[in-house]
Amino acid sequence: MNYPNGIKKEHNTSPITYRNRGMSLENDINESNEYYREIDKAYIYKKPTPVKIVKVNYPSRDKAVITEAYYTIPSTTDYNGLYKGKYIDFEAKETKNKTAFPLANIHSHQINHIKNIYNHQGIVFLIVRFTNLNETYLLSGKDFLDFTKQADRKSIPHSYFKEKGYLLKDGYRPRIDYLKVVDTIIGGI
Amino acid sequence: MNYPNGIKKEHNTSPITYRNRGMSLENDINESNEYYREIDKAYIYKKPTPVKIVKVNYPSRDKAVITEAYYTIPSTTDYNGLYKGKYIDFEAKETKNKTAFPLANIHSHQINHIKNIYNHQGIVFLIVRFTNLNETYLLSGKDFLDFTKQADRKSIPHSYFKEKGYLLKDGYRPRIDYLKVVDTIIGGI
Repeated sequence: MNYPNGIKKEHNTSPITYRNRGMSLENDINESNEYYREIDKAYIYKKPTPVKIVKVNYPSRDKAVITEAYYTIPSTTDYNGLYKGKYIDFEAKETKNKTAFPLANIHSHQINHIKNIYNHQGIVFLIVRFTNLNETYLLSGKDFLDFTKQADRKSIPHSYFKEKGYLLKDGYRPRIDYLKVVDTIIGGI
Repeated sequence: MNYPNGIKKEHNTSPITYRNRGMSLENDINESNEYYREIDKAYIYKKPTPVKIVKVNYPSRDKAVITEAYYTIPSTTDYNGLYKGKYIDFEAKETKNKTAFPLANIHSHQINHIKNIYNHQGIVFLIVRFTNLNETYLLSGKDFLDFTKQADRKSIPHSYFKEKGYLLKDGYRPRIDYLKVVDTIIGGI
């Protein structure tokens, strides 16, 4: 799909220096969400990233993309939408760490957001990929918040994901069928 | 609130040429949403605008903001969030027209989005301000979609808003108490 001035949607994604980090999980989720929309199952979107890329030089004038980067701090999570009449909200993160997920990956205002959504009966969760273990987990907002209440923890151990999380298998379409797990969570409310 | 590099959040808003158009309604809604969050009533946010500003030159190096602009087409509406456990989704527009709201203001994919949200039991609506009449209406997604089904209409007459919409009064906090109307809509489901 082409946009005015030959500009493509990709320009609104993560900054270049981060492109190799987290791109793959993000792609998997975006494609899964597209699939869900195609089959009229759910309407979940990634929010435009409040980040601007700088100094991307394209060869021809047609494709002229010239910027400096602006970062603005996200106040919420990256993904939200509607499924089975319910509000869905989640953050997706990758880590190269094999033993734990560093909590520095989630800003404090994002933790507050997760708390607010949970308290107001939204379906909220994290999707965390341990890239070097090739494992992707869905961790419910409740289990995430329970963990963060513990003092002096700077990361969530991998064992906590194994115990409390749901392992998400890779598939073809959708790449990650996370709504199957959401069905379980909704069923448990 | 200051961001890294002295960059302020405003850089993520509408492009300069549009700044005087629609800014006031947007401000009113953003402040209302802030108020709703402060009193823990609802968590509704404006999505980051998929627009990038170009060639904004700031005087000092601290505030260095140098860009070209990228426009990407929004595929959804501007605002969404959670209220009383329900998914809320809306678009807000101003028009200087006194007799009708031109449908060119709403992209076809946004109309599809509104349809999808309505079909999946989300609470979806438009907030339209007739700036020269000093009137702001909430029009339910259903009434909006009913209208768009009529052939050969390029605008929604002001009378349709008077008949089907809900007039939103200006207030102090919140500036526009649109959730009061949402209560009516939820009650009617």
